[in-house]
Amino acid sequence: MMEFPARVEVVEVGPRDGFQNIKTFIPTAMKLQVIEQLIAAGVRKMEVTSFVHPKAIPQMADAAEIAEAVCAKHQGTDFVPLALVPNLVGAKNAYRCGIREVAYVTSASEQHNLANINRTREQSLAELASITAELPDLKVRLDVATAFGCPFQGRVNENLVLSLIEAGLQRGVATVVLCDTIGVANPKQVYNLVRAVRAAFPDVPLGLHLHDTRGMGLANTLAGLAAGVTMFETSVGGLGGCPFAPGAAGNTATEDMVNMLHAMGVDTGIDLDKYLAAVQTVRDHIQPELTGHMVKACKYENLSE
Amino acid sequence: MMEFPARVEVVEVGPRDGFQNIKTFIPTAMKLQVIEQLIAAGVRKMEVTSFVHPKAIPQMADAAEIAEAVCAKHQGTDFVPLALVPNLVGAKNAYRCGIREVAYVTSASEQHNLANINRTREQSLAELASITAELPDLKVRLDVATAFGCPFQGRVNENLVLSLIEAGLQRGVATVVLCDTIGVANPKQVYNLVRAVRAAFPDVPLGLHLHDTRGMGLANTLAGLAAGVTMFETSVGGLGGCPFAPGAAGNTATEDMVNMLHAMGVDTGIDLDKYLAAVQTVRDHIQPELTGHMVKACKYENLSE
Repeated sequence: MMEFPARVEVVEVGPRDGFQNIKTFIPTAMKLQVIEQLIAAGVRKMEVTSFVHPKAIPQMADAAEIAEAVCAKHQGTDFVPLALVPNLVGAKNAYRCGIREVAYVTSASEQHNLANINRTREQSLAELASITAELPDLKVRLDVATAFGCPFQGRVNENLVLSLIEAGLQRGVATVVLCDTIGVANPKQVYNLVRAVRAAFPDVPLGLHLHDTRGMGLANTLAGLAAGVTMFETSVGGLGGCPFAPGAAGNTATEDMVNMLHAMGVDTGIDLDKYLAAVQTVRDHIQPELTGHMVKACKYENLSE
Repeated sequence: MMEFPARVEVVEVGPRDGFQNIKTFIPTAMKLQVIEQLIAAGVRKMEVTSFVHPKAIPQMADAAEIAEAVCAKHQGTDFVPLALVPNLVGAKNAYRCGIREVAYVTSASEQHNLANINRTREQSLAELASITAELPDLKVRLDVATAFGCPFQGRVNENLVLSLIEAGLQRGVATVVLCDTIGVANPKQVYNLVRAVRAAFPDVPLGLHLHDTRGMGLANTLAGLAAGVTMFETSVGGLGGCPFAPGAAGNTATEDMVNMLHAMGVDTGIDLDKYLAAVQTVRDHIQPELTGHMVKACKYENLSE
């Protein structure tokens, strides 16, 4: 029997993972408009920006402005703004702006970590330790990159994933997210890896960040659901996720996943009509070519018989 | 536990369902070239054409020529050419060309059957009875259209599907295919309907014809696999399936499904590289805009660790 949860937590990553992949600078006011539309649609957790060096990703040069505006506006509500931080400096800057939960990326694959972050896994873990030591009331989510495959070393052994999670937990990580960084996961693999991680770390909140590069975004989501995952990171319109070919999909689109979950009777807290209005804003003002499906199809209402 | 079969039968429908949705007439030689490339890639069952009236679908005016050529060339091999037939006249024409297995469409929804075929369900079933009576050694697959939802009546009750299958079996149908005609199925629904059909008709070969309109093509495939289905109808490049909006996906792309199945260790008998070469032919000579994912992504080889 396939069993599904009653409710799923949707973590929106579009304003970080999506926007950072867009070359033209998006006006800060437009970013904030999309963020506010997503919150109004019911999103309760969102990566709103990334505290990387502006020379590395100029699109994120307004990280402090974005974070401050969102934190000020939604303080005291149940909305949780997240930011990605690559190091202690970024974490301190995020904290100063009011951010109390951050995503920190380390690759299961040593070669990918070196290529992507220019650090060994050990160096990444040492930096993580300095973040949790210096900012003890900052919650840290560990994004395990290349958890399902690496562009350099191919298959990523389950033990590399488990050992990275264990090391992260020892350094104070509160949440773990398995990321299909290059979009090569398959449902069997997702199901098996999730079960292995849950067996090893049963009390650790576990999320999935899945790509739709090869059309398996929702199939992998389904496999994750069947394995017990109730937290998924997705992106408005399918923006971002480093697609490596023109027209290829990257991140799974939030609206595609929400539509599927609602059709299955799984609650997300999101109002799909309002969410689709936010997708339209993104299409009209930021990125005309979206890879999500719901922006092209129409919403289907299950009329009564 | 999610369990998956060792092998899946891929039924290619691109040269029928895909080509019939293309407005410009595709030269018969080009159609035959794609069909031959698909067979060379390992496809062992394929809808090669449709014996509809050429006034209804001019693209299928060369049905007899296509069927005769393919039947002559592959007689005595393990390749099975299929054709869609809308009525007894079409079935006789197909039979005359050498076709020994046909697809016959009836909608679970009365309103859709009237709109699509201009017959009541009862009239469709009477025509079906005349086909099986007049051509007793022609195998008939019953394509149950709108099995998961109807554009006119919305939700389609499970009993409408079960009663249509029962009526089809009484009239000599050999195989049943549940079709997500308008791309609104969700994985939970697929799983539940397949289990209900298998429980009611445990000995009847059952296939699924799934669309990717809302990004759920492979998720629904996965749900079907988990429910025990081992026969899936898909289309080269994702051609066809009546997408009702520009850019929207219709049929699930064969190459996307094959890539997923192979990654999961499920055999299909198809050589993905050769199949992708056929997709390129379709893209270069028939339809430049394909909705399948694998034509835009690259194939990912799981290198050794």
